[in-house]
Amino acid sequence: MQYSITLLAAGLVAQTGLTWAVPQAKNFIYIVPDGYGQASQTMARDYVSLQKTGSNASAPIIQELAGDRLVLGTVRTHASDNLITDSAASGTAFSCGHKSYNDAISVTPDGRPVGSILETAKLAGFKTALVVTSTINHATPAVYSAHVANRDSYEAIAAQQIGYSHPLGPVVDILLGGGRCYFKPQSDSTSCRSDDVDLFGFARKKGYHVMQDRAAFDAYLGGYTTNASLPYIGLFNDDQMMYEIDRAQAPEKEPSLLEMAQAALRSLEQATRASAKGYFIMIEASRIDHAGHANDAAAHVHDTVMYNEVLGFVQNWVDAHPDTMLMSAADHECGGLTTNGFDPAPLVGVQHSFEYLETRWKAYNGTDKRGYFVSTILPAAGLADATSAQVDALLAASSPWAQMKIMIAKKAGVNWSTGGHTATDVTLHGYAAGAKWREFKGDMAGNHDNTELPRYIEKVLGLDMDATTAKLRAVNGSWVAGPEAARRSVGDKRHSH
Amino acid sequence: MQYSITLLAAGLVAQTGLTWAVPQAKNFIYIVPDGYGQASQTMARDYVSLQKTGSNASAPIIQELAGDRLVLGTVRTHASDNLITDSAASGTAFSCGHKSYNDAISVTPDGRPVGSILETAKLAGFKTALVVTSTINHATPAVYSAHVANRDSYEAIAAQQIGYSHPLGPVVDILLGGGRCYFKPQSDSTSCRSDDVDLFGFARKKGYHVMQDRAAFDAYLGGYTTNASLPYIGLFNDDQMMYEIDRAQAPEKEPSLLEMAQAALRSLEQATRASAKGYFIMIEASRIDHAGHANDAAAHVHDTVMYNEVLGFVQNWVDAHPDTMLMSAADHECGGLTTNGFDPAPLVGVQHSFEYLETRWKAYNGTDKRGYFVSTILPAAGLADATSAQVDALLAASSPWAQMKIMIAKKAGVNWSTGGHTATDVTLHGYAAGAKWREFKGDMAGNHDNTELPRYIEKVLGLDMDATTAKLRAVNGSWVAGPEAARRSVGDKRHSH
Repeated sequence: MQYSITLLAAGLVAQTGLTWAVPQAKNFIYIVPDGYGQASQTMARDYVSLQKTGSNASAPIIQELAGDRLVLGTVRTHASDNLITDSAASGTAFSCGHKSYNDAISVTPDGRPVGSILETAKLAGFKTALVVTSTINHATPAVYSAHVANRDSYEAIAAQQIGYSHPLGPVVDILLGGGRCYFKPQSDSTSCRSDDVDLFGFARKKGYHVMQDRAAFDAYLGGYTTNASLPYIGLFNDDQMMYEIDRAQAPEKEPSLLEMAQAALRSLEQATRASAKGYFIMIEASRIDHAGHANDAAAHVHDTVMYNEVLGFVQNWVDAHPDTMLMSAADHECGGLTTNGFDPAPLVGVQHSFEYLETRWKAYNGTDKRGYFVSTILPAAGLADATSAQVDALLAASSPWAQMKIMIAKKAGVNWSTGGHTATDVTLHGYAAGAKWREFKGDMAGNHDNTELPRYIEKVLGLDMDATTAKLRAVNGSWVAGPEAARRSVGDKRHSH
Repeated sequence: MQYSITLLAAGLVAQTGLTWAVPQAKNFIYIVPDGYGQASQTMARDYVSLQKTGSNASAPIIQELAGDRLVLGTVRTHASDNLITDSAASGTAFSCGHKSYNDAISVTPDGRPVGSILETAKLAGFKTALVVTSTINHATPAVYSAHVANRDSYEAIAAQQIGYSHPLGPVVDILLGGGRCYFKPQSDSTSCRSDDVDLFGFARKKGYHVMQDRAAFDAYLGGYTTNASLPYIGLFNDDQMMYEIDRAQAPEKEPSLLEMAQAALRSLEQATRASAKGYFIMIEASRIDHAGHANDAAAHVHDTVMYNEVLGFVQNWVDAHPDTMLMSAADHECGGLTTNGFDPAPLVGVQHSFEYLETRWKAYNGTDKRGYFVSTILPAAGLADATSAQVDALLAASSPWAQMKIMIAKKAGVNWSTGGHTATDVTLHGYAAGAKWREFKGDMAGNHDNTELPRYIEKVLGLDMDATTAKLRAVNGSWVAGPEAARRSVGDKRHSH
């Protein structure tokens, strides 16, 4: 009986030839595991299973990760100008419902802006949040909150995200992630801006609580504080936040993605409790992608496991707040990862990302370079068993890192075919509580073009993204940063796409 | 209202902690795209889309393939003794619901038989069918109809499949595929048996209509004949049937998988029209896997497209026969295929599989080997633009094929990481008509261990596989062929796993 009642209440909505029942919800959580492919989940699941059960690759006992409970299907990802998308084009698709070209941040191929689901929610009275481990002005958070012709326009994106140059003013109530340097004027020695704009100062004027380190996060959002008022911005690294594999060993440095997501959800829930309008939040496990670009298997696993931990927390959150729905899909696969002779055991010994080890290696100024490499670098990379001849070869190479990545990949029986993205479909996850979960599956189990995803959220929340697009396009003046705003200089080397 | 009525009729079944609504059906169609991974579908979809729409990789217009309309989720595939499964262990899982070791054909690790969903359906009065493009005694069809310790026991498998040495007698009403040589006594020059057993002769005695070539297929099953009575067996090649890319250019030689599936479904429908019991059929697009093992991109695409054509036909069939349900999932990925710089255009020019070209090349006995290679072999491989230096290098190599496969893969921007299988999850497809489709999605959208799949079919058809297992295990004598029956001799080189 429950079904017929809910169906009558929800009504039937026709969309792209399909019939959607569309359960209604007050809040929507969208999670992007950037660069997460099908092989990422298998690798992470098997890694965790073998650790937890004490089994091995020759007699495996496999247990589900949180994401395995939430699979809805697959998503097509191509850009308007390439079968292989970048995060910008794919993000524009799943934030705004429009196909565009690689590098586009919520503009169509003609350069005109399109409204995002986050902006539309904000205009309708919802609270909004972006929680990421990349720089906050990286492509995925950018597509929800900025409109520029080229994703490398980091300064223009940051300025729009905080409302400084966004025609709708500040549209994001919570911003958590990295990219602190873009919010400081160039007079600050740690700035990476080329102008005197002080975005943190602007944020404070607009009422944002500003946090710039873990201590500030703990003070304002730590523990189970639920009275942290909106809006707030917390940026915990000038650059990308740390890989989880590195952060877990220095938790005093930065909050984890899970901690940030928990804090944001508690704040949003508190802020909307008395309102008819809820919230929209985008959470991104940003650096699965960076580990893919770097062909760093262990860093990729740890960030994928963290993504699953966030999914597990959010599933429980939805059960506790049944007026909330979850959807999650990657923008694209990254690295061309395959599990061609797979045994995750050798990855268990890896203690740090290659990014971290390279920094440590460059910083070493002692006299026993070989000793340091053998005693510290190699064991941390899971390569303590390298032979003396291998060590010689690595130290003789102009850079040992590419060869070391191949060595650990071979040990674990995985292969990377590229340092870029691939065209292959990605997995769609989702969740809703109680009877809504079956309805959601009935609507969205399947294979979808990535542009369909925000159209579903739009229906669930009762929003109209096209109206936002019309509003943005009616704004006078060339506020959309053109291609000339892209700056591949100060900070750009840092930002793999 | 439809929902609550159907739910009440179906009842709620608890299974592995989940609640399944389980729509009931009279007939079940299970399709195995052997060795089909996530990248296979993206590659085939983009290939067909660019051909159909005349678009290109820099301005793609993408259209759905049949399989895209039927996605339900993903499937985990590991074997009991390895994270990477073979077709035997995975097949044992999705035919019988039990994990076992690589090489196992429907026996548990202790060597004892487990009943398959097909055998169980047969015992319950259903009609049954196996339709494949591999040899009929290859691992995937074998797991439904035989019980041996090692998949290479091809003679023992064939003998069980036709009922000669199966304790339940003949359990398969329709067998269509390759592997003809295993059904002829060694006295026949085209036999690959090492004994005098005449399985075609046995089949005739048991009432099977026997077909051994396309003409016999056309005579008995061609056109829209629906009065072909059961049982029948049609084996159209001593070895594997042709790759679709080759067969399509010589359709007089063999029926396609689609033609065989259509014929079998019409026969099954006719044979069960007046019965309360329906049918179970397993259809396998067997050679997607072989093309993966061979790292043959074009052959892989064409067999994947054929799989989608079968899915499309079956979706329409289910709509026309709503007492029928469909489920489809691969046993594993094969080849470690990634689309790392993808453009399918160069694959359009490929006219034949490498297997076919190698045979042609070996058969060439003319005097102008170079001329033949340049004028016939290279264009058919999509490599007409090879430079003279490349031709020289290829002809100087002990075998040019490995290098040619890399050349065409590079042109198309794909990569194969292995000649074997990988551990990565595969896609689950399914379909049911009308309101049952939403119920099916509500039940099965998600990520499943491969052992769960036949347990669902069992519920849908109202069967009991454990009873079949008990019956098989109660049979006296050592009828399950042990490891010693495996014969890696005459026919074995042919059968990639």
